[in-house]
Amino acid sequence: MTETKKMDRRSFIKKAGVGAGVAAASTVAAPAIVQAKTEMVIVSTWPRDFPGLGISAQRVAKRIPELTDGRINVTYFASGEKVGAFDSFDEVASGKSQAYIAADYYWKGKHPGWAYFTAVPFGLVYSEMDAWMKYGGGQDLLDEIGAEFGIKGFPVGNTGVQMGGWFNKEMESADDFKGLKMRIPGLGGDVLAKLGASPVSLPGSQIYENLVSGAVDATEWVGPYNDYFMKFYEAAKYYYYPGMHEPASQLCMGMNKSWWEGLSKTDQAIIEAACNEENSRQMAETNANNGAFLNKLITEHGVKLRKFNDDIYDSFGEAAKEVFDETRQHSKLAAKIHDSFAKARADVGAWNGLSDTAYTIQRNRVLEIG
Amino acid sequence: MTETKKMDRRSFIKKAGVGAGVAAASTVAAPAIVQAKTEMVIVSTWPRDFPGLGISAQRVAKRIPELTDGRINVTYFASGEKVGAFDSFDEVASGKSQAYIAADYYWKGKHPGWAYFTAVPFGLVYSEMDAWMKYGGGQDLLDEIGAEFGIKGFPVGNTGVQMGGWFNKEMESADDFKGLKMRIPGLGGDVLAKLGASPVSLPGSQIYENLVSGAVDATEWVGPYNDYFMKFYEAAKYYYYPGMHEPASQLCMGMNKSWWEGLSKTDQAIIEAACNEENSRQMAETNANNGAFLNKLITEHGVKLRKFNDDIYDSFGEAAKEVFDETRQHSKLAAKIHDSFAKARADVGAWNGLSDTAYTIQRNRVLEIG
Repeated sequence: MTETKKMDRRSFIKKAGVGAGVAAASTVAAPAIVQAKTEMVIVSTWPRDFPGLGISAQRVAKRIPELTDGRINVTYFASGEKVGAFDSFDEVASGKSQAYIAADYYWKGKHPGWAYFTAVPFGLVYSEMDAWMKYGGGQDLLDEIGAEFGIKGFPVGNTGVQMGGWFNKEMESADDFKGLKMRIPGLGGDVLAKLGASPVSLPGSQIYENLVSGAVDATEWVGPYNDYFMKFYEAAKYYYYPGMHEPASQLCMGMNKSWWEGLSKTDQAIIEAACNEENSRQMAETNANNGAFLNKLITEHGVKLRKFNDDIYDSFGEAAKEVFDETRQHSKLAAKIHDSFAKARADVGAWNGLSDTAYTIQRNRVLEIG
Repeated sequence: MTETKKMDRRSFIKKAGVGAGVAAASTVAAPAIVQAKTEMVIVSTWPRDFPGLGISAQRVAKRIPELTDGRINVTYFASGEKVGAFDSFDEVASGKSQAYIAADYYWKGKHPGWAYFTAVPFGLVYSEMDAWMKYGGGQDLLDEIGAEFGIKGFPVGNTGVQMGGWFNKEMESADDFKGLKMRIPGLGGDVLAKLGASPVSLPGSQIYENLVSGAVDATEWVGPYNDYFMKFYEAAKYYYYPGMHEPASQLCMGMNKSWWEGLSKTDQAIIEAACNEENSRQMAETNANNGAFLNKLITEHGVKLRKFNDDIYDSFGEAAKEVFDETRQHSKLAAKIHDSFAKARADVGAWNGLSDTAYTIQRNRVLEIG
């Protein structure tokens, strides 16, 4: 996954709210109530109305005014409407806008620690990520890396385990990745490079044409619900699972830290709650849609579903270890984030193996599901 | 799982809030702001400060006043403090209190459809349950069954996949369940009865003594984090997974429907958001703790972890099918709930098999986790 379409940069005249109406209240027993409107400009990295990601960002932008009865007035800009997707971090850090909604691994050029808060190869699935963020030290580390850049962030969505990608041939061993030109950004691309592939970064809007022309041999994107609309099946029939590169892509709302600290405790709590509920809601929406859209891909378009074999997964694992070792060496904070994340993966991952995973295997086997 | 300890019924004098202070506000451009305090009494089915379940209920009771800056004043009663756990439904339906926090399968005597909104044998794991509730028709069905009783409900927590239980011998085939006296309530107990076991319902506070005395041979409870404190390992060393009986025990907040309908749109949205965030938060807390507490059980107390084999699971599956057939026949609404749930299990369950489950198997295998 990555941001798809750089829309034409349009300049929007930000509609000023109704003159920052301050209402002085009088009451018998309580102190005067001062109702000042707070303006919150959100810039996102997703195109307007983009299925899944865009819809989710727009939903939380609408929810905050609902939860505050309009006390916080949100103005939402999709990617390119105020700034380009990849400019949204600086836009917020500098205080020009109050918040971004993005995949934080876009900022790994600023610090590789950011990648862990979206997804890394051989990383955490959604339930593990949520356990790490809320009860395993993840949020504290997000606060620590955020403080270095003037950002206060919360998870605000998740698109779950990604598919492994679209290929125009069957992938039978790690050798089949040698020389393969594949669109796969970030650390996942670094892993494949170690197997001899040539990973390419392309915005979503350019993948289809590159795949059809043969400029790339393969691509990953998200999962059936999102991939359906990209029509990759026209050039690559083999759809592989499970993806190792983004096992639960978490999205975050990053706010300007000074602005955040000036909010009332109530408004802070409401924004946190809005982020928390959208975090699980987007995951629910994605899971609800993926099964149905996978069926459509198979039945309507003859897509061939394939599973990466153990040999390929073993090779992915060795390569990922090298990539992680390099990432850890960047800085003390990178190592601290990696080690906290690795502990959650071992502890919560072991429990997952005995609970959701072991149960789902047995249930699906007995009931012949899937 | 079920409610644990009936505490002495104590009568609490409900502290009246500060005389329903109505604040009239004056302002230049906006209409007058009327800030009336809303009183919300929550009765729960969990003992005060009970790890996991009680803590979660108390957290959301505290969160609602935080999110409304005290506009909604919550008074929280643990089980037995205002009414006994199993009286909380009638307490709320009659309007004496405004909300309960409970496992809705406690009300299956009123209508078997309620069981589906907590957990049923061979049911949904958390991620599937959330997808069903929010995007698969589950919430509409909860509203439909709730309306028959004057209740408006939202999911407000989840304790995930339960362990299969504590046994004093190894369970090697379905025959080993014949004549077994096991503490296991609800539909899970009905499934085991079909294998020839004698299921028993016991409140949590009485399980330990019955297990030690030999009055029961086996028991289930929740998972490592919750079970640790129950000391069942003193009488039953074999701890089996995965449980088939409660694959994701969802808790709900049930509100008096007339009271709910009288709330402002903003207050309704805030209560829904508070429930949504607690729903995923409790799941995160449980997942974060279960791995660590399972290790403690094994290393500190010599607990022997065992996995139900395929033969046993096949027998569970056949028995569960009979139980479901009986449940469906209760009424049109029971059949409608079952069929919607079964569709989500097939669709989202198939996707789960290819995503979280397939990925976790490979990752845990390659990294030697668990």
